[in-house]
Amino acid sequence: MKYIEGGVCAAKGFMASGIHCGIRKNKTKKDLALITSERRCAAASVYTTNLVKGAPITVTKNNISDGYAQAIICNSGNANTCNANGIEIAEKMCDLVEKHTGIKASDVICASTGVIGQPLDIAPIASGMEQLVSELSADGSVSAANAIMTTDTKLKEFAVEFELDGKTCRVGGIAKGSGMIHPNMATMLVFVTTDCAVSSEMLNKVVKEDVKDTFNMISVDGDTSTNDMLSVIANGMAENKEIVSEGADFEKFKAAFNAVTTKLCRAIAKDGEGATKLLECEVSGAKDAENARIIAKSIICSSLTKAAMFGADANWGRVLCAIGYSGAEVDVTKVAVSFVSEKGEIAVCENGAGIEFSEEKAKEILLCDDIKIKVVLGDGNAAATAYGCDLTYEYVKINGDYRT
Amino acid sequence: MKYIEGGVCAAKGFMASGIHCGIRKNKTKKDLALITSERRCAAASVYTTNLVKGAPITVTKNNISDGYAQAIICNSGNANTCNANGIEIAEKMCDLVEKHTGIKASDVICASTGVIGQPLDIAPIASGMEQLVSELSADGSVSAANAIMTTDTKLKEFAVEFELDGKTCRVGGIAKGSGMIHPNMATMLVFVTTDCAVSSEMLNKVVKEDVKDTFNMISVDGDTSTNDMLSVIANGMAENKEIVSEGADFEKFKAAFNAVTTKLCRAIAKDGEGATKLLECEVSGAKDAENARIIAKSIICSSLTKAAMFGADANWGRVLCAIGYSGAEVDVTKVAVSFVSEKGEIAVCENGAGIEFSEEKAKEILLCDDIKIKVVLGDGNAAATAYGCDLTYEYVKINGDYRT
Repeated sequence: MKYIEGGVCAAKGFMASGIHCGIRKNKTKKDLALITSERRCAAASVYTTNLVKGAPITVTKNNISDGYAQAIICNSGNANTCNANGIEIAEKMCDLVEKHTGIKASDVICASTGVIGQPLDIAPIASGMEQLVSELSADGSVSAANAIMTTDTKLKEFAVEFELDGKTCRVGGIAKGSGMIHPNMATMLVFVTTDCAVSSEMLNKVVKEDVKDTFNMISVDGDTSTNDMLSVIANGMAENKEIVSEGADFEKFKAAFNAVTTKLCRAIAKDGEGATKLLECEVSGAKDAENARIIAKSIICSSLTKAAMFGADANWGRVLCAIGYSGAEVDVTKVAVSFVSEKGEIAVCENGAGIEFSEEKAKEILLCDDIKIKVVLGDGNAAATAYGCDLTYEYVKINGDYRT
Repeated sequence: MKYIEGGVCAAKGFMASGIHCGIRKNKTKKDLALITSERRCAAASVYTTNLVKGAPITVTKNNISDGYAQAIICNSGNANTCNANGIEIAEKMCDLVEKHTGIKASDVICASTGVIGQPLDIAPIASGMEQLVSELSADGSVSAANAIMTTDTKLKEFAVEFELDGKTCRVGGIAKGSGMIHPNMATMLVFVTTDCAVSSEMLNKVVKEDVKDTFNMISVDGDTSTNDMLSVIANGMAENKEIVSEGADFEKFKAAFNAVTTKLCRAIAKDGEGATKLLECEVSGAKDAENARIIAKSIICSSLTKAAMFGADANWGRVLCAIGYSGAEVDVTKVAVSFVSEKGEIAVCENGAGIEFSEEKAKEILLCDDIKIKVVLGDGNAAATAYGCDLTYEYVKINGDYRT
C-alpha cells in the first residue's frame, strides 16, 4: 500500500468539482462541491448522534437506505439545520443534480456545513449547477475539497493505492472540519471514494469499525456538530472480486481505508480552529479498548491541558486530573506520563506522582508543532489514540465572531 | 431572611484569619487561612468525584467521619495532590492547628488549592502558624477569603440572618474558584459556618441536596478538579432548638444555606478565569429535573456558545446544538430560546427553528455583563439553572502559563 495523489478522484471513474455559487458573500471562497461516479456505487454513511440533525442528513439517510449512491453534493456557508424548509431545500439540491447530470436524485448524498438556523436559499445553487457540472473532472478533488471548507485553513485530501487479487485498487478521501469538532459515532464531513468492488454491507462494516478509532477519537472543542457525516462510495471499477464477506481482502481494504481516514483525522485535529499544535494522546496498558479510548479522549478534550500545551507548559497534573474525571476504570496510582516530540521524550510522572525532570528539556519538546502525550497505565494491555489540538487566543477570536 | 456582612465570621463564635506564610513567592498574596469555632461543631462535607484526589480530602474525610469538626485550615499555591508524602503533610497541617490552638487535630478540616504534583513544604506553614493564630478575629473572614484565592480576581463571601423559634441564626460562607471548575457532587473550595443548631445528619442532608442545584451546576471549563470540597460547620451558638429532622425549621435553614450558596455560585461563575460575563442558563418545560440540569449544563459548557457570548453574537444555533448532544431526553422540535439581560429580552428560536429578530437589539442585550440564556422546552414542567461564563482570550492566557 502506498500514498498517492488525487484525493476523491484517485480511484477510477470518479470526477469532482467545486465552485463559488453565491451562498457565501466572499466571492473568492468556493461554496459548492460535487463528486460523481461513472457507475452506480455501493454506499455507506455514519452520521452525528446529535438529536438536532441537519436536514441533509435526513435526506441522505433516505437516499442511501437501499445501499447505493452515485453522487455527492455539498455546500459550505450554511448548515441547512433548524430551518423550517430544510428538507425541501436538501431534496431540491438532489433534484438539481439529477436535472444536470442524469444521476437519479435518489442516488445523491447531500451535505451542508456552516451557520445553523439561517434559511438556505436554493437560488444560488440552482444558478451555479451548470458551471459545477461542466467543471467536473478527474483533477477536481482539490476544488471540491476547497469548496467544503469553512474555518479550515488547510485543504484535507489523501489517497492510497493497494493490490487486490492482481488488480490495483484505490481509496481516496477529502474532509472538512475545524470547529464544532467532537464527533460521536460519525464525524465532520468526510467523503471517501474507492474503485474497489465491495458490497454495501461490508462497506458499512468497515466504516462503523473504523470511526471508533479514527473520527470518534478527535476533539477540537467538545461540541458535537449537528451535521457530522462520513460517506464512502465504491464503484467497483478496479474489477477486483467483490468483497462480500470478511477475510483477507476485507482486511486489506479496511487497512487502506484506515490509512486514508487516519491521515484525515490528524489533518482535521491539526487544523482545529486557532490551533498551533497537533496533540496526540496515546494511552496504553488500559483494562480494555473502551477504557483506553475514554481516557485518551478525556485528556485531549481538557481545556486546561490544551491551554498548557499552547503555552508549552509541562503541566502534567492536568493530564492526571483529566484521567481522574474521565469516568474510566483506572488505577490512578499506576499512571505514568511522558511528553514526546521530534525533540525527544521526557517522563514527568510515574506511579501517579511527579518525578524530577528538566523543565528546560520539557520546554524544548513542547515547543514543537506535533506533540504526543504518552500515558502508560498498569491495568491491562489495551491501547487507543486520540487526536486534538491546543486551545489558543485564535480559537476564541474565530468563535466570538463567526456568524457576523 | 436578609443578607448581612461578615462572611464565615457572621455567625456567633467563629473567628478567621489569613496570612502570607511563604508557600507562594509573591509576598503580597496571602496563602494560608484558618477558621475556628469557640465550640465543637456538627460538620458535613462533599468532595470531588475525580479519582485523583488531593491528599487533604483523604485526611478531612477521616477527621469528620464522626460528624464533628472545630477548625478549617486551607493553603493556596499548592494543591498537595499527586505527591508521595501528601497525606503526611496534610496530617501535619492538622497537628499544627492542635499545637497552636488546642483544637484536636482530628477535629480539623484540611484543604489545599494550587498546582498539582509539586511537593508541599510544611516549613513555611509551621513557621507561619503563630501569626495565623494570633490574627484570628471575628473580623477575619475577608483575610481568610483572600488567602484561599488562586487565579480568582474577586473575593467571595456572603452571609444571611434569619429567625428560628425566636432566636437569630446566621449562615455565612467563603469560596474560591476560578479555573478547573466543573464540580461533580462537590465543588470548588467552599467553607460555610453557622451558629444554627443542627445535627450532622441533617447538615449532610442539606449539603447533598443543595449542591445538586448550586455548585454542581457551575462550569467554567469542564475540568473537574482533584481538590473540590464544600464543608459546613455548625456550632449551635444561636441556641435554637437543634434541628434533628425534616420540618419547618429544616426548610428555613436549608433556604438560608441556599441563599448563601447561590450567591457564591454566581460569584464563582462570574469570576471564571478570564471571564467578562456571567452566563446563566435557565431551562424550563423539561421532562424532569435531571433532564433540565443536563441540558442547562450542556449549554453552559459549550465552548462555542461561550465564545459566541464573549463576542455578543446571538448565535442560538450553538445553543440548539448543545441541547442536541447533551444526552438528555428532549423533543428538539419544541425548543424555544431567548436571550435576556438588563437591556431586555429577545426571542431567537421557536419550535426548534429560527425566527426573525433584530440583530441590533440582540447585540445591545448581549453586550451586558450578566446574560441569561432562557430555554423553554415542551416536554414537561421541570426546571433548572446552570451557571457559567464566557470563553475569552484571557482564559487561554491564564492557562497557557499558569505553572511557570
